[in-house]
Amino acid sequence: MSKFWSDYPIIEKEIDAVSSIIAKNAKCKDKVIESSILDLLNSGGKMLRPAFTIIASKFGNYNEERSRALASVMEMFHMATLVHDDIIDEAEFRRGKETVQSKYGKNYAVYIGDFLFCLCFRVLATTSSIERGIDVDTQVMSRICLGEIEQLNSRFDKNVSVKDYLKRTSGKTAELFSLSLYIGAAESSCDKKICRLFWNIGHNIGMAFQIIDDILDYTATDEELGKKSGNDLKEGIYTLPLILAMKKNPSVFENILNKDNYSNEEIDMIINIVKNNNGIDDAMKIANKYSQKAFRDINKLPDNEYRDILLGVVTKLLERSY
Amino acid sequence: MSKFWSDYPIIEKEIDAVSSIIAKNAKCKDKVIESSILDLLNSGGKMLRPAFTIIASKFGNYNEERSRALASVMEMFHMATLVHDDIIDEAEFRRGKETVQSKYGKNYAVYIGDFLFCLCFRVLATTSSIERGIDVDTQVMSRICLGEIEQLNSRFDKNVSVKDYLKRTSGKTAELFSLSLYIGAAESSCDKKICRLFWNIGHNIGMAFQIIDDILDYTATDEELGKKSGNDLKEGIYTLPLILAMKKNPSVFENILNKDNYSNEEIDMIINIVKNNNGIDDAMKIANKYSQKAFRDINKLPDNEYRDILLGVVTKLLERSY
Repeated sequence: MSKFWSDYPIIEKEIDAVSSIIAKNAKCKDKVIESSILDLLNSGGKMLRPAFTIIASKFGNYNEERSRALASVMEMFHMATLVHDDIIDEAEFRRGKETVQSKYGKNYAVYIGDFLFCLCFRVLATTSSIERGIDVDTQVMSRICLGEIEQLNSRFDKNVSVKDYLKRTSGKTAELFSLSLYIGAAESSCDKKICRLFWNIGHNIGMAFQIIDDILDYTATDEELGKKSGNDLKEGIYTLPLILAMKKNPSVFENILNKDNYSNEEIDMIINIVKNNNGIDDAMKIANKYSQKAFRDINKLPDNEYRDILLGVVTKLLERSY
Repeated sequence: MSKFWSDYPIIEKEIDAVSSIIAKNAKCKDKVIESSILDLLNSGGKMLRPAFTIIASKFGNYNEERSRALASVMEMFHMATLVHDDIIDEAEFRRGKETVQSKYGKNYAVYIGDFLFCLCFRVLATTSSIERGIDVDTQVMSRICLGEIEQLNSRFDKNVSVKDYLKRTSGKTAELFSLSLYIGAAESSCDKKICRLFWNIGHNIGMAFQIIDDILDYTATDEELGKKSGNDLKEGIYTLPLILAMKKNPSVFENILNKDNYSNEEIDMIINIVKNNNGIDDAMKIANKYSQKAFRDINKLPDNEYRDILLGVVTKLLERSY
């Protein structure tokens, strides 16, 4: 497991319990299916989404069994999208470990992702409280898929705007952060104002988190990332640092970004141009704006131990350099 | 639309309404997403699963809006699995039309399938009656994915038994037929005995239907199928005709089925050996057993117009040669 939560044993314990639920759901006669899901589960992800569900659920009438089950849904949905993303990226490694598609083949990864989607809806259907319904959850999940498709459609498109980027990021990342916090609060019967506040906190954490992730693709080493750096660029995914640098100095990119395939030397060159045109710093400024909004809203939450935990982990998360 | 239902205008009208629901759900700012779903919807599928949901719902307190919505869920789930199956098969054509993966690429097909899964759960979550819950539905959906994975894992495995084949077929095809009928009956408050009867009818229709489908891969022309015949064999999917022929005459297959790639000539040769060893006739006998069971149970249903329709279409379906 990731050491991310080691300063918060109370959350670490919950995450262990959530992992056990996922492992139990992955139990399967077919040992390859089971072990590929367990591999993914134990690959050292930070388990942010389930932790957020647990934390938010502590602000209301905490129901251990239900909160943990819903937390597992958030992680299984995330895992399903990761498995399918790795097919698209033809990624060999994630978090330093071989991906499902690399180990068992693309075809297998398609179905393992589908199986995870079904598992996630199954647990959601059996644990959500009847009053609340799961229409919000399933709407969010649709929007996440749309975000992925938008990203795919805008590959190698040098006309992508900051607005396009923010919209896509909102869909593919921030929505699930919002849902993870919201579902925890709503299912423990927090009042509507608190639920909405959690939704917004999730959005702003998610936006800042994804922008920082995209910056790290430009600045971190392969070892720090657990996968190849410059990978987004290679895949034609133009993220905020590049978009901002292009906006500042369009002419320098004119003759570079007109293909749909870059050599490693070209990638290094583009990364340097982005850095020289303040792409990293300007992107960081936007990430900070989202972070500040998140912190402002977290401070509006009722003052308790879990608010402090949330403040602590969000600080840690948004200041990470790996 | 397929002409399959033209003798039953009462069902044809319902299917039109179900198609409109799917089209409405597919509405999307991104026109490529929308049109790829509409292409699939209008590609001339028989819309069996939604028709079954409608028919079964007529045996209870028929609620037009709810039955049609649930019928659309059955078809959207089916569409999602088709899009993903075509990735695995690298299929260029389905029902004589270009597949999503062939037209827009594999990556796109992964996400379009995911989007359809999410749509399907979304409609399910918002229309299922609260009392019934959707745990049965989501369990079935998981089992369907497992059936697909099992099929994938048993590719080019010449030790696959009749039992393995029937189990896999039950998962990947019959379960959704069962669910389509069951959900219609259960959501219109039929009594439990009738719901169970529909479940069994769906199982037996589904088994017979899939066996016949697998036989057609050996006997029909490309034009009749709307895709390449012999495709299962080429993909290493050993179906009932081959399994039965192997059982009857193992030695003749010994030196043929020991690779994981066949030329067109080898495919033709295997098809002939299967035919010469009664693989087709013996498989047809098993299909007929399932058909008989289905007819026996349909006759146990309350005598009404919809029972007659069900008898009529199942006869037509199980006697088809295309």
